[in-house]
Formats: sequence, structure tokens, C-alpha cells
Amino acid sequence: MRFIYFFLSFVLFFSCNKYQETKRNLEDSSPEAEIKKPEDAFGIVIHGGAGTILKKNSTPELEAAYTAKLEEAIRVGHEILKHGGSSLEAVEKTINVLENSPLFNAGKGAVFTSEGVNELDASIMDGATLNAGAVAGVTTIKNPICLAREVMVASPHVLLSGKGAEFFAKEKNIEIVDPSYFYTEKRMKSLEKVKESVKTAQMDTLAAFYDPFIREAKYGTVGCVALDKSGNLAAGTSTGGMTNKKWNRVGDSPIIGAGTYANNATCAISSTGWGEYFIRAVVAHDISARVEYKGESLKEAAYEVIQNKLKNLGGTGGIIGIDNQGNMVMEFNTAGMYRAAMNAQEELTIGIYKE
Amino acid sequence: MRFIYFFLSFVLFFSCNKYQETKRNLEDSSPEAEIKKPEDAFGIVIHGGAGTILKKNSTPELEAAYTAKLEEAIRVGHEILKHGGSSLEAVEKTINVLENSPLFNAGKGAVFTSEGVNELDASIMDGATLNAGAVAGVTTIKNPICLAREVMVASPHVLLSGKGAEFFAKEKNIEIVDPSYFYTEKRMKSLEKVKESVKTAQMDTLAAFYDPFIREAKYGTVGCVALDKSGNLAAGTSTGGMTNKKWNRVGDSPIIGAGTYANNATCAISSTGWGEYFIRAVVAHDISARVEYKGESLKEAAYEVIQNKLKNLGGTGGIIGIDNQGNMVMEFNTAGMYRAAMNAQEELTIGIYKE
Repeated sequence: MRFIYFFLSFVLFFSCNKYQETKRNLEDSSPEAEIKKPEDAFGIVIHGGAGTILKKNSTPELEAAYTAKLEEAIRVGHEILKHGGSSLEAVEKTINVLENSPLFNAGKGAVFTSEGVNELDASIMDGATLNAGAVAGVTTIKNPICLAREVMVASPHVLLSGKGAEFFAKEKNIEIVDPSYFYTEKRMKSLEKVKESVKTAQMDTLAAFYDPFIREAKYGTVGCVALDKSGNLAAGTSTGGMTNKKWNRVGDSPIIGAGTYANNATCAISSTGWGEYFIRAVVAHDISARVEYKGESLKEAAYEVIQNKLKNLGGTGGIIGIDNQGNMVMEFNTAGMYRAAMNAQEELTIGIYKE
Repeated sequence: MRFIYFFLSFVLFFSCNKYQETKRNLEDSSPEAEIKKPEDAFGIVIHGGAGTILKKNSTPELEAAYTAKLEEAIRVGHEILKHGGSSLEAVEKTINVLENSPLFNAGKGAVFTSEGVNELDASIMDGATLNAGAVAGVTTIKNPICLAREVMVASPHVLLSGKGAEFFAKEKNIEIVDPSYFYTEKRMKSLEKVKESVKTAQMDTLAAFYDPFIREAKYGTVGCVALDKSGNLAAGTSTGGMTNKKWNRVGDSPIIGAGTYANNATCAISSTGWGEYFIRAVVAHDISARVEYKGESLKEAAYEVIQNKLKNLGGTGGIIGIDNQGNMVMEFNTAGMYRAAMNAQEELTIGIYKE
């Protein structure tokens, strides 16, 4: 117990000191977030969503809360990796911390659909075997990333959805909660605000739908990628989707190749952003394919896909990635992305804004 | 009216003569199905599913029925392209013919889930804009490919699922049918047979699930890819999924990058087979990426992905593809794939078996 207090105090102290330093590293341009690792490397990178995250809209208290939670999460995964645990285990347990926090749009903090419910999506992929598991549109699963992993290892399927996925969860003793667990006042207010802006918008319905709902919203998906000491890569993503989403919309988070991809031959990627564009650009697999077939570095591939291809389509958001050498990248074309990276030397970088 | 009779007679006559010729072309090895086209080319390729399709299990009558329907379908799309219509229009209308036939596992002929219902998936992609639309798990949509196209052009989303997708369909006046429309005795018998084989299987549950249900089953998804006179590519896929599927499983057909992909810079692809492997291998986008980044021909890329990568993972099935020069490919690693291709010179190839 004393150890835990000591550890937490250390974490908080470290966080406060480190935050100013690391922010500087990440402030000017995200490609610089890539750090070279030695051959016996391991490492972990996380995101808590990308979007219109501006310093002027935040407070020092809120920044500190986000930074502390990002650090708490990444240290959970880093501990697992440090002790020889698998990248899959690190990805799942790290994402659990973010899912259990109301700060991020995943698990507890999931946004509301147009009907005022929380529909959660998640996926996970094992770079060693190319096994994958995903769930879409679940409303009673406390930690969708755990269910995604169960789908991967204990079903012959990759993607389960809705009630069927929840039935499978019950069979497998995955933790079920009442849908009211996901209620947070903050997210309900966001929904009300978005609905109000539709009513008052002086645009046609489609344009109204696009602009105030998505462009100005924070996306808030969470994700994690990791390389373990055995050289195995894994990636995972978990989300509540988009505020005011309709018609059982499914975004990129449960889509292997778009929201999540891991392959020991190349890299592991988790996406966050305007999901429709990530699906159309097959973002996560495209980065991997550029590394594999074009010989680009992870940094070059991530830059090209996020800053050029995705942006040219009109898509906004970002990715985190780690390659099989331990090189890490946090690339985004939005004003900010909640993010953190930590290598085998326990060097931690945490960032929120682009500048 | 007389013209239609004349046309149908011509089609049937042509079909009977052509079938023997074209079968020979496709019998030995599917890579040979690629045909070079001149610069002003247009073309269309379709599939009606891949799997354990063996001559010994068929009859001349059944072969003739499949061949006639494949030819009817491809000629619908070919006519559209010939008169300057778009590849998207050709893909949708061609797939409608296959969806409306009980012969294929899509639309009318969809297989049953474990609960004895028909859950349909479809997706479509426009290679000119990289726009895409998809639906998963719909139970009342007569032609899921039409709904997928409507999602693409009339919603801000790419993938809608279940009841939400059906609600959107009603708003957009997409044809709704009673779920009983999809009942066919043949598919119900397949479900009963599969359920019986699970009971009697002397294997553990998971292995039982894998083997008799999937490996020995025909997959029967339908798909179409086309290049129009303007140089625009499109791809579409529609399916009833897998007999006895559980837990609202979603396969590769509605997944952009796995079941369907089109990009004017490279090619258009539609997949059919054991969906889970196609998702894990991101098959459709991987073929496009090899063409774009590695400089492989469509034929080389399709061969490598289907005969090596997919097979090494344990996945079975096939793809159809057409590139932006009009080169066509029909590649599969199963005993057979229902398929047809037709170029600007009206050369038609139809095939069922590998050998």
C-alpha cells in the first residue's frame, strides 16, 4: 500500500515536471515526436482523441487532469512491457484506464447518439498472428476493448455487433453494466448543444450536419499501440463515436485497417478523428503498406497519410504508431491530440496541443 | 418488346455457345483470366461467390442456371457502360440482378443466421472520389447495395448498421420487404444441415464451428467491379454472410478495404470468401497498395495476396478486380468461383470451376 502511495506521488511529481518539458518537444510539429530506439527496444504510445483542442478553451486544472490520466494509463502498459508482458496485454490494460475515465470519449466518458444512448465501438489486433477482434454498437459493455480481445481469442469471428455482441459478452463473463453507467452530464450537454446548433443553423441539413457536429467537435477516441520485448506489436482503439450520431452509424474504430492495424512486419497504428475519412482512406493499413511496399519510415508514411492524403480528402484527425524497431510517431492534422509515448529507457513524452 | 425477346434469345444462344469456350479459358489457372485492354477501354467483372464448388456436386441444369444468371447480370452493367453510364451505376444495377436471384447468397438468396433470420451486408465505393457507403445486418432491405449507395451519397456516414440503417432506408424511400421475402427452402435446409453437423461433430466447439460450417460451405457473396468510359472505377459487394452465423457477426463485405475497394489511381476490387481472413488481411486495399506502392500489375498483386498471403493465414476465397487501364482479374484459391468478365469489345468470359 505504501508502495502505491509512493508510486502515485512519484507519478504526480514526475508528471508536473515532465509536462512542461515534453510539451515543448511536441509543440512545433508532430513528426518530431518520432524517437529512435535501440534493437532490444520496447515502447508504448497512446492517444485520447484529436480535434479542435485549443489552449484558450482549456484551463490549467483541466490540462493537469488530462496529463495525469494519460500518464497513469501509459505507465500501466509500460509496467507490463517492462516485466516481459505482451503488447496485447499492455494495449488492453492501458486502454482500460482511459475507458474508465470520464475525460475521454470511450467507455465511461462515451458521447451520446442522437437518441440519447451510448453506443460503443472497439477493436484490437495482434501483429504476430494478424488476429483481430472488434465490436460495434454495444451499449452495456463497461470495457469494449476487453470484449474485442475476447472476440479475437474466443470466437471464430472478427467483428460482432449490437445485441449479438452483448450476448457473446454474457457467455464469456465480460463485465456488463447498466446503460446508465455511461451517463455523464458533460456529454449530455454536448448533445443538447449540438442539437440546438442544428436547429439554428442557416444551412441545408447535410451541411449543418457536417459542420457544427463534426468539424468543431473533439473526437475523443482512445487508442494504444505497443511493442513488447519479444518483438510483437499490438494496436487497440475504443470509442463512443460521434456526438449526435444517427442510424446506428459505425465509425473507423472497430474497422481493422482503418481505425486499428498491427503487423509485426511493419508497425502498429491506432487512429482518432473523423471516422468516415479514416475508413475511406483505410488509414491504418495504408501507413503499414507504405512502410512495407514503398520502404518509407513510419514517420514518413504517417506524415504523408495524415498531412497530405487525409487532409486532401477533407479528413481531420491523427494517429499514433510504433514500428517493429520501436520507432514511435504521433501525427495529427488537427489543433491538438491528447497523447503520450514512453520508451524502454522510461523517457516519457506527453502532449495536448500542436503549438 | 420484340427487341427484348430478341435480345434474350441472343443472350441465351450466346451463353450456350460461349460457355464451353470460356470455361476452357478459365479452367487451368485463374491468373490467366487477366486480359489486356486498349486505352479507351471499359469493362466489368462480377462474382457470385467462391468456395467448394465442385463439378461432381453440380448438374448440367444447375450450371446452366448459374451461367445464364451471371451473363444476364453482366450484360446489364455492360449495356450501361457501353452507353456512357457510370461505373457506379453499372455496379449497382448488375448486383441488383444477382441480389434478386435465389441462386446467390445475397438479397433474395441470403443464408440464415443461427437464429433463422437473414442479416444482409453490402458496400460500394467510388474510385473517383474515394466516397463509400455500406450497411451491415439489415433484415428488411430488398437490395442492400442500393441502400449502401444511398448511404454514400445522401448521408455524412460510410457505415450504418441494423435498425438504424433500416430507419435511414425508410427516410430515403429505399425498397423495404417483409423479412419473409428472404426465406428460401434451400437456405433453410443448409442451416438445418449445418446445425445437425455441429451436434454430431466429434470435435471441440470451436473446431466444429470452423470446419463443417465454413470450409465446406459455399460462400456465395456477390460482387461487381467496373471501369467506365470516363476512366472511373467502382466496386460493390453484397452478401447474406455465413450460414449459422451468430452474435450479429459482420463479415468483410461491408468493410471498405477488406471486401470492397476502388481507387482511380489503381484498381477496383470485390472480395468473396471466408470474411474473417479477408478483414485480417485487408485484402482489397492490400491489392491496391501493392499496385500503387510496389508497382505490381493487378494480376501480380491479386495472385500474391490470394494465393500466398491469404492462403498462408488459412483463408480461402477469391477476388475480382479491374484496373484503371481495363485489365481484369478473377483470382481465387478455392475449388471454384462463380464469375464473369466482359470488355469493351464485348468479349465475354464466364467460369465456375478452377479445373
